[in-house]
Amino acid sequence: MTLTSADSHSGGPRTATVIAAIRHRLATRALGPGQRLPSIRALAAAMGVSPATVVEAYDRLAAEGVIRARRGSGFYVADSALPPLALAGSESRRPRAIDPFWVSRQSLDADVTTLTPGCGWLPATWMPQDALRRAIRSLARRDGPVLSDYGGTRGSAALRRVLQARLAGLGIDAFSEQLLLTASGTQAIDLICRMLLRPGDTVLVDDPCYFNFLALLRAHQARIVSVPMTSTGPDIAEFEAVLAAERPRLYITNSGLHNPTGATLSLQTAHRLLNAAAAHDMTIIEDDIYGDFEPEPSPRLAALDGLRRVILIGSFSKTLSASVRSGYIAARPDWIEPLIDLQIATGFGGPGQFAAETLAQVLTGGSYRKHIEELRVRLARARPRVAARLQRVGITPWLMPRGGFHLWCRLPEGCAATDIAQAALADDVVLAPGNVFSAAQSAGAMMRFNVAHCEDARIMAALERAMT
Amino acid sequence: MTLTSADSHSGGPRTATVIAAIRHRLATRALGPGQRLPSIRALAAAMGVSPATVVEAYDRLAAEGVIRARRGSGFYVADSALPPLALAGSESRRPRAIDPFWVSRQSLDADVTTLTPGCGWLPATWMPQDALRRAIRSLARRDGPVLSDYGGTRGSAALRRVLQARLAGLGIDAFSEQLLLTASGTQAIDLICRMLLRPGDTVLVDDPCYFNFLALLRAHQARIVSVPMTSTGPDIAEFEAVLAAERPRLYITNSGLHNPTGATLSLQTAHRLLNAAAAHDMTIIEDDIYGDFEPEPSPRLAALDGLRRVILIGSFSKTLSASVRSGYIAARPDWIEPLIDLQIATGFGGPGQFAAETLAQVLTGGSYRKHIEELRVRLARARPRVAARLQRVGITPWLMPRGGFHLWCRLPEGCAATDIAQAALADDVVLAPGNVFSAAQSAGAMMRFNVAHCEDARIMAALERAMT
Repeated sequence: MTLTSADSHSGGPRTATVIAAIRHRLATRALGPGQRLPSIRALAAAMGVSPATVVEAYDRLAAEGVIRARRGSGFYVADSALPPLALAGSESRRPRAIDPFWVSRQSLDADVTTLTPGCGWLPATWMPQDALRRAIRSLARRDGPVLSDYGGTRGSAALRRVLQARLAGLGIDAFSEQLLLTASGTQAIDLICRMLLRPGDTVLVDDPCYFNFLALLRAHQARIVSVPMTSTGPDIAEFEAVLAAERPRLYITNSGLHNPTGATLSLQTAHRLLNAAAAHDMTIIEDDIYGDFEPEPSPRLAALDGLRRVILIGSFSKTLSASVRSGYIAARPDWIEPLIDLQIATGFGGPGQFAAETLAQVLTGGSYRKHIEELRVRLARARPRVAARLQRVGITPWLMPRGGFHLWCRLPEGCAATDIAQAALADDVVLAPGNVFSAAQSAGAMMRFNVAHCEDARIMAALERAMT
Repeated sequence: MTLTSADSHSGGPRTATVIAAIRHRLATRALGPGQRLPSIRALAAAMGVSPATVVEAYDRLAAEGVIRARRGSGFYVADSALPPLALAGSESRRPRAIDPFWVSRQSLDADVTTLTPGCGWLPATWMPQDALRRAIRSLARRDGPVLSDYGGTRGSAALRRVLQARLAGLGIDAFSEQLLLTASGTQAIDLICRMLLRPGDTVLVDDPCYFNFLALLRAHQARIVSVPMTSTGPDIAEFEAVLAAERPRLYITNSGLHNPTGATLSLQTAHRLLNAAAAHDMTIIEDDIYGDFEPEPSPRLAALDGLRRVILIGSFSKTLSASVRSGYIAARPDWIEPLIDLQIATGFGGPGQFAAETLAQVLTGGSYRKHIEELRVRLARARPRVAARLQRVGITPWLMPRGGFHLWCRLPEGCAATDIAQAALADDVVLAPGNVFSAAQSAGAMMRFNVAHCEDARIMAALERAMT
């Protein structure tokens, strides 16, 4: 948002005229730092506008910091120009080692000229913006509390009702007492880690896994161990061996569509995995954030287990909006209670009420299922198309996923992914090199591509340049 | 939100007719659990509506969990009724010790029949809802990214620009690199504690202090020490003695209007306090959340210190909206960098972009200053009125604050605040007993009242009943 657009929206043309007149006096130094502005009455008379118009103009200039109000004595030109806001570009392009934060920060702070085939979300144009706009406008007409109040400690009852129905569709029967809304999917995992982990505790992840799991676990000072991923879930023999040898307290995974590999957990692996977890009393966080992208639901650990030692988490950031945000936790009711306390202590609540109610409205509207179907079709076309393009430059998908937007790929012989990512950044292309996903640092020749962000020809050109 | 209001808004009357027809068949058992619903084509023909109308009706019923879609084979009645959502009342009225969470949970989960003189926020009707509605509608018209994307790692540039101007008005010059938006004010403190504290570290608070500081510090396993509060800030001689004896790593306080006492830090105390902090290399978090309620700005530690060892945090939840939420941190630029990483690791970003841009729009609009003036006037009238009423039942304010909505009060001789809070809850009145604010448990005869929530005659009646 720019201040100009705010002005032009909420102020009339007369307010804008007064603001322009003051700006002109400032620019020409007719009014200098520290000087008093004309009184509201005098300026209103001089410009032939109402005093209210001048008040509005002064308030806006004060909100920008150009002038300042002194109680009882009028408005003054600010003593000094404000320190300038640095440009987004210069904020985001600090030299820095290629670690999980490198990918997050380069992707999140990318400007419009930067291409982000390494990012973990869909382009804004793929999201259901009309449905979101309708829901927002509808909410804005509602009574005050939804706009102003904190909301209950478990979060929107409407959104929890939607979640109950969605989970039931996956074979997971969760009572209301088993659901808690959180500010985001990541925050859901963070709260659970705060409840379960002490510094030095061992946590198991897949190799490779979503890179932010590693960043989060390092923030908790956990000891991280990993098991190689196969196309049907973690290598189950090795999984059993690691549980026996390392006794991890917790395992974090995506079951449906695994990030970054796109693998799908098989029912047999799920069954053995849960038995091993039971034998060694290990808790599991199942991150279902990509679940809606599946062509048909695959087994959920939470469904087999009945939400006993498995905690299911998710959010709507990948399919609906990452700007109007909420995550959620489905878990044993006796775990939800301390999680509510932790969320109060560390955030005084979860998602904003307005965001949660907006999401509920979109999800209960009739258009969401159609949107998801369209996304699936669009991605099903994009995956083989992008895979073919990558193969033409010698980059090979590790497997062809059943759904979603990630392709986990092997680079040509002799290519180091971090060098290529570093070189591509000079061409304004943000890549996701394999080892940021790998606790064991076993993925130096791998890279994750987001097929929804791979259409621009400059990407393949930058890749070829970087690989030679 | 109810599903009914969502239906009536976004669907046409034909969709509602189809939904009603299906509900009737379910209620009369013409369609039982597990049975297949009529095909879309057949029902559309039978009811004289378009197939799209039936699809929309089925999608809504599926979103509610009443029916389920099976890919390729149509829609079926859900196998079993969903587990019912428990009523908000039964969720919130668990027996529980009176601790900081007791006040938070009872206040946040209060239903419409419950009175909350112990809560820490204003009634929804006191908030600038029209300005918020205008800003939301304006944002809903904007281009897609603001509705869908994560946004940059530091948060909305527009909101940070507003913050720069506000801080400059308090004598705090913060560069863009010194500002970070967070999901809430509490989360701002939490991130800073994650950066600075290790389990067992000593942290200093005021006695009394905002009760959630204590909950947060316990979540960090900090060792809490406290210094008695006076009407001009912490007892400075004791403050210096505690710093020398206990070597706290961190001090957390509100400077402008202190919570719960309403005290104002004097310039002299601020100066000595900062010198003591420098002598013992202690960091300070200054929570400015009540700053806008001051009739005129009092000294800010961050202004004296120049944001070197003082970190200023705040939010807009008390004056603008706790539903459309954002907090912020102003700190040394070399501290902002690790805080950005921590916020990515633990939440994948701060406030939703939509919320932050909405707040920026309200704050740059001309009406915010007027809103704040009106709040100040309204509260300046309410404070003595409520104080007089409390005094009539023997409850005496500890001091009469310059601004804000809290009155920190002493109960009549022999009254225990926790017993009174427990008894008042039976009359649907949520109070804030003194010891939840006191690390030293020195406030057993004190209670905090929110003057904006004290107009209902039932409150004084419940207090009198509970005190006898």
